[in-house]
Amino acid sequence: MAFSRLVRFVPKSDESKVLIGEPVDASIDVGLAIYEGKDVEVKPFTGSSILAPGERTENVEIIKTVLSPLAQEEVGTIRCIGLNYVSHAAEMNLSLPEIPTIFLKPSTALGNPWPEPCYLPKITQKDNTGDYESELAVIIGKTAKNVSEEDALDYVLGYTTANDVSSRTSQNNQSQWCFSKGFDGACPLGPVVASTSIVPDPSQLQIKGTWNGNVVQDCPLTDMIFTVPQVISYLSQGTTLPAGTVIITGTPPGVGAGKKPPQYIKGGDEFRVSLEPHIGTLITQFKNE
Amino acid sequence: MAFSRLVRFVPKSDESKVLIGEPVDASIDVGLAIYEGKDVEVKPFTGSSILAPGERTENVEIIKTVLSPLAQEEVGTIRCIGLNYVSHAAEMNLSLPEIPTIFLKPSTALGNPWPEPCYLPKITQKDNTGDYESELAVIIGKTAKNVSEEDALDYVLGYTTANDVSSRTSQNNQSQWCFSKGFDGACPLGPVVASTSIVPDPSQLQIKGTWNGNVVQDCPLTDMIFTVPQVISYLSQGTTLPAGTVIITGTPPGVGAGKKPPQYIKGGDEFRVSLEPHIGTLITQFKNE
Repeated sequence: MAFSRLVRFVPKSDESKVLIGEPVDASIDVGLAIYEGKDVEVKPFTGSSILAPGERTENVEIIKTVLSPLAQEEVGTIRCIGLNYVSHAAEMNLSLPEIPTIFLKPSTALGNPWPEPCYLPKITQKDNTGDYESELAVIIGKTAKNVSEEDALDYVLGYTTANDVSSRTSQNNQSQWCFSKGFDGACPLGPVVASTSIVPDPSQLQIKGTWNGNVVQDCPLTDMIFTVPQVISYLSQGTTLPAGTVIITGTPPGVGAGKKPPQYIKGGDEFRVSLEPHIGTLITQFKNE
Repeated sequence: MAFSRLVRFVPKSDESKVLIGEPVDASIDVGLAIYEGKDVEVKPFTGSSILAPGERTENVEIIKTVLSPLAQEEVGTIRCIGLNYVSHAAEMNLSLPEIPTIFLKPSTALGNPWPEPCYLPKITQKDNTGDYESELAVIIGKTAKNVSEEDALDYVLGYTTANDVSSRTSQNNQSQWCFSKGFDGACPLGPVVASTSIVPDPSQLQIKGTWNGNVVQDCPLTDMIFTVPQVISYLSQGTTLPAGTVIITGTPPGVGAGKKPPQYIKGGDEFRVSLEPHIGTLITQFKNE
């Protein structure tokens, strides 16, 4: 079943249910509207997963709580690309990588959009070096392995926003990044998945990060070093990417660790990642564990 | 239900079934016996997962095919420790790390023991730098988060053998190791899980790696830099380790990349990892994809 934009949510009509569906207003920023307390109308699909959405219905439900587009058990291991923006490499005085830098987050890192908070664990609070990274997330819709760059977009279900929440002291204390970026909830995701039918070329999106009301990241995706098809093809070499795999594709310049002096997130802070057009805003409030 | 040693297997009596159970011969090396074509008798438990084994029965089944102790869908993301043996650090002229080096493999990397082959993907064949790493694997039996070193072993179901199959060119071409160690089947595991009742202190085990009949790794686990309780406690900080989580704990000296000149595995090679006492041998035959 074709769709333009999907969300996963708990409806006001029955809070014991989880539904998926398409927002009635094709241009509404769902994450922002929920935050502002507006009623968001959705036409539910018959399926319970965006991986098998079933058929569109003509009912209308109002969102009570918006969720990440996939449940933890659907996501598996989250694939992540490190340094992937030309201007971020320049900012950090790093040469451009020749192959994608790949690390992983466990599925327990998946987090829902606002109002679910993202908890800064005690190990991060101790160092007080928690950081944000605004990112485009790619959701794989059918199992991919050894796919070519030419065919890569055929495996994409759609795109959404992510925050690659990081703990910089833990990251810099060892060569590998998985622990410092893999805490519970360290990958808030969603809420809107825009299909490849309305986002045929993700390089035409613009990504923006807003920290406590101040825009700190703002970059066109044409600045990416490795394009979405290149990333998917590379990740799939020798490696099955099951349907439901989430790939987060790197962050543009402007992270807290890159500021002079560095500035870090703390409990009570709010961070927004937006991708325009079509996708909208992921809002995350941080709290201390 | 308490157990000493468990295996997961397809029985000769009905090849459509997967059972778990305890070998009748308490000292048999199951992986080796299967390789040698011997009949291995097992008393099945009523459960279908080592995470919920149920009750012991008095039936006896013969193993047709031995499997990894957990299925892919039970494992989630595999946690891995890098440099974790004092003598391996010395061999590589590296100083001892102050905190565990952590990377991850996706669940699709889980592989069964012989006769299932481990395929060297084309990207590894191109460089011809596939390598083995004999490792102790810890299986978490109940969900763990923010656990202390003192309590860590309470969360352990048991121990088994693993091979942290690596592709050295891919590993050395980028800072992060997840891609080069995460190919499909790059974590053969099993077959025997020895419980904490017969392995109360894993540092008393001896690990051995045998490559095409030649012993290339042979080390007591007292040589570990971070003990099993330290590793579990550290990994669980801010991070849920669901029941079924597999932690592989680093390799002793003697990997192919460390030889002068380096020597690498190729299609047709056989590698054996053994842990004694109680656990036995994981045999892996490599094939080209």
